[in-house]
Amino acid sequence: MKSVWLENSVLSYRDDVPVPEPGADEALVRVSLAGICGTDLELVKGYYPFTGIPGHEFVGEIVLAPDRPERVGERVVGEINVACGTCRFCLDKLPRHCENRTVAGILNRNGSFAEYLCLPLANLISVPASVSDAAAVFVEPLAAVLEIQDQVQIHAEDRVLVLGAGQLGQLIAQTLALTGCGLRVAARYGKQRELLDARRIAWIDEKEISERFFDVVVEATGSPKGFAIASRAVRPRGTVVLKSTYKGHLKIDVSTIVVDEITLVGSRCGPFDTALRLLQTGKVEPAVLIEQRYPLDDALAAYEHATQPGALKVLLQFSLKNSGGTSAAISP
Amino acid sequence: MKSVWLENSVLSYRDDVPVPEPGADEALVRVSLAGICGTDLELVKGYYPFTGIPGHEFVGEIVLAPDRPERVGERVVGEINVACGTCRFCLDKLPRHCENRTVAGILNRNGSFAEYLCLPLANLISVPASVSDAAAVFVEPLAAVLEIQDQVQIHAEDRVLVLGAGQLGQLIAQTLALTGCGLRVAARYGKQRELLDARRIAWIDEKEISERFFDVVVEATGSPKGFAIASRAVRPRGTVVLKSTYKGHLKIDVSTIVVDEITLVGSRCGPFDTALRLLQTGKVEPAVLIEQRYPLDDALAAYEHATQPGALKVLLQFSLKNSGGTSAAISP
Repeated sequence: MKSVWLENSVLSYRDDVPVPEPGADEALVRVSLAGICGTDLELVKGYYPFTGIPGHEFVGEIVLAPDRPERVGERVVGEINVACGTCRFCLDKLPRHCENRTVAGILNRNGSFAEYLCLPLANLISVPASVSDAAAVFVEPLAAVLEIQDQVQIHAEDRVLVLGAGQLGQLIAQTLALTGCGLRVAARYGKQRELLDARRIAWIDEKEISERFFDVVVEATGSPKGFAIASRAVRPRGTVVLKSTYKGHLKIDVSTIVVDEITLVGSRCGPFDTALRLLQTGKVEPAVLIEQRYPLDDALAAYEHATQPGALKVLLQFSLKNSGGTSAAISP
Repeated sequence: MKSVWLENSVLSYRDDVPVPEPGADEALVRVSLAGICGTDLELVKGYYPFTGIPGHEFVGEIVLAPDRPERVGERVVGEINVACGTCRFCLDKLPRHCENRTVAGILNRNGSFAEYLCLPLANLISVPASVSDAAAVFVEPLAAVLEIQDQVQIHAEDRVLVLGAGQLGQLIAQTLALTGCGLRVAARYGKQRELLDARRIAWIDEKEISERFFDVVVEATGSPKGFAIASRAVRPRGTVVLKSTYKGHLKIDVSTIVVDEITLVGSRCGPFDTALRLLQTGKVEPAVLIEQRYPLDDALAAYEHATQPGALKVLLQFSLKNSGGTSAAISP
């Protein structure tokens, strides 16, 4: 089958990868649409030594399910963390933190940048007819964004700052706006600002961020600079949510964290069911964040596009024909 | 008057410091007993460029109060953060985070390692007759320890680890034990372990700490090593409380904080009224932590004692006569 392949931090396009065979309680899914996210770009930079098919945002159709044939034909999204169900964290109702987990496209399991992928049936969640593929492909990042509110109580009277107005920052902004909090989003690029304007979400220039002012700061840039801005913007006793992929170590001024009694919260994956419900009710509209769709065999050009400053969501659409893009390897 | 003096990280004993004069709404307090804490030791190492009289744990008696003469003779402890009452953080009910604050013995205000100190009347809290001086001198660190529970909800079913079993760790252990949580205290020294045994608090050896096991870890060593142990001991989605003074920056593996969704909480000063109530009801008994009392003119020997590994609380007692100790300067 056609597939993107990552090995030794070198990304390539291949058409010789075997179609996977579903194991017990698994299904084979034909991918319709897949999204490139910041973690995919970090993996190419060596954030984690992953070898195989990357990609963890997708919508597709079950084409083979030996243990549940009645599910064939179902349009699904997939929880990417595959849990063992028996370790201490699974038993403690933290399956996304399973000690033995594999994670599609990230950790010891092939992902969604291919014609097909396998996932356990329990991970495949049916997409309601009212939710389009263009919306459903955002379920995974939307769930991750909703995790913030699972971890931190956002009050309507809170002053909240989001750092980063790319694909992740926009989803964060859309969900936090639902709380009625006093929301500001630091946005650099014209199109980012227009998207926020369209939803009447207030954006600000990075230079105009008030110091020691915000009750909650959500850092969605994943950069040391973003972390430094967050540290200055949060008020004493406030909270900084780290909602991005960071590579390696950051030097953190722990003294200030103690003296100002700051709370730092790391935040990763979240609840798919809530994400689907928000899409169904139209409370969040991610499809406006789609910047461009590429055919699978143009995946390297799609990655290249996704790395551009200010880029929003770049998708791989499996029904598209190649427009003549490159198939040369990209390395970091 | 007699006083300890810190200047350019050099500690000295002086007997030529003028007795301070109380300003408007202030009182002059004659210090009876003062405690040396980790922050005092860090100040000598240059944690913060403080010049003047250090010390922020004390019990004493109001001897002059021009605006409230009826308070003369009152036995008091003192909230060390002197707030302006008008800045945004004071108006937001965070006076301990006042933007214009001075802090006795730490920031732009003389502290308690002297015969007398001045504090605003509003900062001086009456000590009930049932609370001894030996207990009251612990009100400030006990309040700081209670701040943990103001910031983090400790559930009875939580597994909680305290790192550090010195004077601070013991107070933390005594207060957290009241919650009924599953408490373990990492203790290195025999006398630390005996104190815990006496209160039926379980201690463990540092080497026996289970990895990724504890819901809450309270880091009270202030060392990079302690932080590293805390990071390994906390479970995914767990909380690490930073309850100590850290000098400078720590290199933190932010990637793990995000992937494991760890919460880090900086914690500093706390509520004096709650601390006094716990002493009054006998729920906490800090006086057992007193290791030795020194006269004020033996303060440098007292500091030296307090820096010894495993040292518990060292006090300066103002009614004691010098036993012939050194008055040479200690520098870091």
